[in-house]
Amino acid sequence: MTTVTPLLDKIASPADTRGFSVAELKQLANEVRAETIDAVSVTGGHLGAGLGVVELTVALHHVFETPKDIVIWDVGHQAYPHKILTGRRDRIRTLRQGGGLSGFTKRAESEYDPFGAAHAATSISAALGFCAARDAKGETKKVVAVIGDGSMSAGMAYEAMNAAVDTTKQLTVILNDNDMSIAPPVGGMSAYLANLVSGGAYRKVRKLGKTVVEKLPTPMREAARKAEEYARGMVTGGTFFEELGFHYVGPIDGHDMDALVSVLKNAREFEDKPVLVHVVTQKGKGYAPAEGAADKLHAVVKFDVVTGQQQKAAAGPPSYTKVFAQELVRQAERDPKIVAITAAMPSGTGLDLFEKAFPQRTFDVGIAEQHAVTFAAGLAADGMKPFAAIYSTFLQRGYDQVVHDVAIQRLPVRFAMDRAGLVGADGPTHAGTFDIGFMGALPGMILMAAADEVELARMVATAVEIDDRPSAFRYPRGEGLGLEMPVGCAEPLEIGKGRIVREGTSVAIVSFGTRLGESLKAADLLAARGLSATVCDARFAKPLDLDLLLRLAREHEAIITVEEGAMGGFGAFVLQALAQHGALDRGLKIRTLVLPDVFQDQDKPDLMYAQAGLDAEGILHGALSALGIDNISAAGRRA
Amino acid sequence: MTTVTPLLDKIASPADTRGFSVAELKQLANEVRAETIDAVSVTGGHLGAGLGVVELTVALHHVFETPKDIVIWDVGHQAYPHKILTGRRDRIRTLRQGGGLSGFTKRAESEYDPFGAAHAATSISAALGFCAARDAKGETKKVVAVIGDGSMSAGMAYEAMNAAVDTTKQLTVILNDNDMSIAPPVGGMSAYLANLVSGGAYRKVRKLGKTVVEKLPTPMREAARKAEEYARGMVTGGTFFEELGFHYVGPIDGHDMDALVSVLKNAREFEDKPVLVHVVTQKGKGYAPAEGAADKLHAVVKFDVVTGQQQKAAAGPPSYTKVFAQELVRQAERDPKIVAITAAMPSGTGLDLFEKAFPQRTFDVGIAEQHAVTFAAGLAADGMKPFAAIYSTFLQRGYDQVVHDVAIQRLPVRFAMDRAGLVGADGPTHAGTFDIGFMGALPGMILMAAADEVELARMVATAVEIDDRPSAFRYPRGEGLGLEMPVGCAEPLEIGKGRIVREGTSVAIVSFGTRLGESLKAADLLAARGLSATVCDARFAKPLDLDLLLRLAREHEAIITVEEGAMGGFGAFVLQALAQHGALDRGLKIRTLVLPDVFQDQDKPDLMYAQAGLDAEGILHGALSALGIDNISAAGRRA
Repeated sequence: MTTVTPLLDKIASPADTRGFSVAELKQLANEVRAETIDAVSVTGGHLGAGLGVVELTVALHHVFETPKDIVIWDVGHQAYPHKILTGRRDRIRTLRQGGGLSGFTKRAESEYDPFGAAHAATSISAALGFCAARDAKGETKKVVAVIGDGSMSAGMAYEAMNAAVDTTKQLTVILNDNDMSIAPPVGGMSAYLANLVSGGAYRKVRKLGKTVVEKLPTPMREAARKAEEYARGMVTGGTFFEELGFHYVGPIDGHDMDALVSVLKNAREFEDKPVLVHVVTQKGKGYAPAEGAADKLHAVVKFDVVTGQQQKAAAGPPSYTKVFAQELVRQAERDPKIVAITAAMPSGTGLDLFEKAFPQRTFDVGIAEQHAVTFAAGLAADGMKPFAAIYSTFLQRGYDQVVHDVAIQRLPVRFAMDRAGLVGADGPTHAGTFDIGFMGALPGMILMAAADEVELARMVATAVEIDDRPSAFRYPRGEGLGLEMPVGCAEPLEIGKGRIVREGTSVAIVSFGTRLGESLKAADLLAARGLSATVCDARFAKPLDLDLLLRLAREHEAIITVEEGAMGGFGAFVLQALAQHGALDRGLKIRTLVLPDVFQDQDKPDLMYAQAGLDAEGILHGALSALGIDNISAAGRRA
Repeated sequence: MTTVTPLLDKIASPADTRGFSVAELKQLANEVRAETIDAVSVTGGHLGAGLGVVELTVALHHVFETPKDIVIWDVGHQAYPHKILTGRRDRIRTLRQGGGLSGFTKRAESEYDPFGAAHAATSISAALGFCAARDAKGETKKVVAVIGDGSMSAGMAYEAMNAAVDTTKQLTVILNDNDMSIAPPVGGMSAYLANLVSGGAYRKVRKLGKTVVEKLPTPMREAARKAEEYARGMVTGGTFFEELGFHYVGPIDGHDMDALVSVLKNAREFEDKPVLVHVVTQKGKGYAPAEGAADKLHAVVKFDVVTGQQQKAAAGPPSYTKVFAQELVRQAERDPKIVAITAAMPSGTGLDLFEKAFPQRTFDVGIAEQHAVTFAAGLAADGMKPFAAIYSTFLQRGYDQVVHDVAIQRLPVRFAMDRAGLVGADGPTHAGTFDIGFMGALPGMILMAAADEVELARMVATAVEIDDRPSAFRYPRGEGLGLEMPVGCAEPLEIGKGRIVREGTSVAIVSFGTRLGESLKAADLLAARGLSATVCDARFAKPLDLDLLLRLAREHEAIITVEEGAMGGFGAFVLQALAQHGALDRGLKIRTLVLPDVFQDQDKPDLMYAQAGLDAEGILHGALSALGIDNISAAGRRA
């Protein structure tokens, strides 16, 4: 489909919209919406959230003098319309591709992205930082944070709202309330917001807006609006926010450009205390296939614009996520103590499957990883077997709780760490890079990584049995290898024991996680050069299989460790253990292959791993350089 | 002072109080208070918070059937009266001593401590875990979480309150509102609570409680109280909590035993939804020296019971904390961009000194480390030079923000990580054990540790200059060495360069942090055995001084790294770098001395380090065993 966008075509930057009439802004919004749909149909990505904020985006850039004024989008996956309006339209069809635009806001990309995001609920804290800097420097720019209702379950948003009144007098927080995060929202706050929106006052105000105000001539209309806005605050209450020191305005219809522009103009001038503008939007707005979908087309692959039909991926093996969930269901069928916890990611973690089987034993606590972890600790303290399924990157949000509430008390919480390693299109903010180090350093923790989906199922079974201490197992985004799964429940592993997958003589490759396949390929490449490699699946980073490691050190000239994680992780633990036991004293050509010490931008995962030197070629290179054979001469020798 | 405690003497467990009259409970409270004061006068520790909850403690154990019913104290430093009542009175004078009672609640210590604590704001999450477990098992026990108003600035408390209504119908949260955390509270929530308490309704209800209810006969009094309680909820509002789905009761006087017992009895029977009981207490209550002190004697050393006069410590060198603050003040005098952030620890971090000099440039955000970190990131993004002074252990609360908001965006936030390493009496929950690993793994981070207070001042100066990326420096609790400090601002260090403190030949001891002194002593012990040791101060864990390390590896038979942190930290980074550069290929007797892989219980720091093998003897032992000399024969050789 070719989108016709005459007004948008003329926009070089948001400044070009400042003189627009509301009618023009409405047309511009329609064009931005069409362009967003068309772009995402080509790239895939986050669609529903962006469509919901098209009018808000246009209104914000019209009313506020971006980039001098600061507008910070929370999460940033709703910022495609924002990118289209802020000089990135020419690259919008590179979204989430290697070398292309990020799927989130990103400082390095544009001066219109003053603060990047991707995790939820950071925007108000960041905005307050800009406010404090502005106030310290005596500047006058305005600061706006846009945050979704889904993010409002995160404690961080509350911490920032609590601190706002002490920090500054000028801040506008836009609460973008679409009654959805990725899944339907949970918790008391969500019910409260729904109540505000469904209350009589909102309906009355909307009606007022439609019938009275629109008929007035412009200056009077403006005055009426102003009065109306203040009335709205008084009528509908929003006491929760008022109690935290905000001036509350709303709820207002986030697709009504008249209302948006006038309310934002008022908010912009308000300098007595922070203002919260409660804007009600519809996720997927203006695109019938999105409006009609249960998830409002939150995240999509390439699709047909007319029908909304997404390209079917060729049927591949089940994802690690699904294998995890299926095994957990099987285990839970015979063990009533198993319960599962997710922080607003029931489908992302596969726990939607678990919930179907065991609705009473599934807890979605919202975007609230801190609570999720300590809640799991409480369950474990009272004899349950909690599985907290949290992406590696999001578990960083609950790290203190893992240390303080779980590990120090040695409580048997099981951490299912999904999205471990590189994640592709979501880029560095979503990579599961650091968990091996930050979990493995904790006394008493048992830490596993699955080499394939059968191993993952066995690790679930193992975690069920570990009832005297915490445990964690990590597995990547994406499909498994298509291995045949065991019938019935998987067999638990022996704690702290690795396995030798291939026996060799000169070099030992010790893999922790799903690089095992590449390690085997590297062994083939070595064999082709006349070098015999042992390949191990370590299975455990904690406790280490010390017997195995010492044997490998004795029997091989070189050891290469391989992991999908940062320095200070598995390879580091291996080195410290070998050093401690004197296995380095007489020389060992050991190399620890880890993710590089940079934040890698998004690309296809395979390319990212190649870049990281963690594919077969990279492992080969590591082995050859350890053995003191340079790659070219080895290749020459082979020829 | 000898305390006379006839009633308390008869109490073997809380069950013995169940038949007590209110008059007896009052007497018991007085005796518990006297015993608390006397015990803490001997041991030192947290005093003010415990004194504030004496009546609440007695009333809770009277009304709830502990330990079957679950009572979870937040933070746990107010739990000395609770320990006295729950079978630990005989050991109460061992509080915070090696081998003695913990200064916090602790599962391993008593069945009356169903969930341990020490960090703030975990209690509601944990309690909800117990609720969910109970509901799943069809049990009927009651669950109570006690949380202070200071903890209410932590997002975690909000996450839990938000989730409560979806999780269970029976939970009592006691909001212990003493209008103090350690420092006076900050933020919108605090103002809101103060408003509830100062409102007319509270005064009216208190008067009602005093005048009307006490005169009625018991059954009628009970009925009247019940009505009164509901009236309280309706009259005073507490809408914030109601909006999150709680039934709100209060505020009530937390030193009025009649009111406490009747309100708690009502709350205990309430099974329609979670109840929040807002109890107003006075920190330091009932002990004049505490009531009169600005900090309500929050934490004390040994003191005289009659006068409240605390033992003066012999005047020692200034603490690391103070040296940090003084240097930051000096730097800020010449650099107006420097601002400082604390999360409710102005005096603990020394930022009270900074605040005195620069009140407008100091931000206390409350117990809210997540917000603190991202707020600092916002400040940095707008060109300021933020120093976030956060204890190592509490920085765990903001880890995701360090990764996502600071490191990925490469923003120059400066982390002053106080209380790094072991902390003595506060025990494992407060140890700064993991930061070297979790900060050092982050791309772009610069990570330093101070060997002494002069070095610390230089690291502050260095961090001021690092303006293109994040940096962090760690330093321990306690006094410096008493070194003469430079006049004026300290000299910045060269990034990524260590220093050789003593030249030797056979073994190199590479220290990261304040073990440098013990490393030098170990070198002396080695010299006495005829072994010549080089001693280095690494200064940087990231970037490592690779030139220096490779030189040390070439020129010494053995290398011993020493750090006040867990595995996966400095020593691990050194090993990975040396391995990468082939420095282990031909043999290097290297040992990485780290904190042991257990959570060490509280004791004197020196003893804990000795236990950890990180004193001079331990380092000596590490060096000798690396060199293949066993300690005894070496000693023999020396003789």
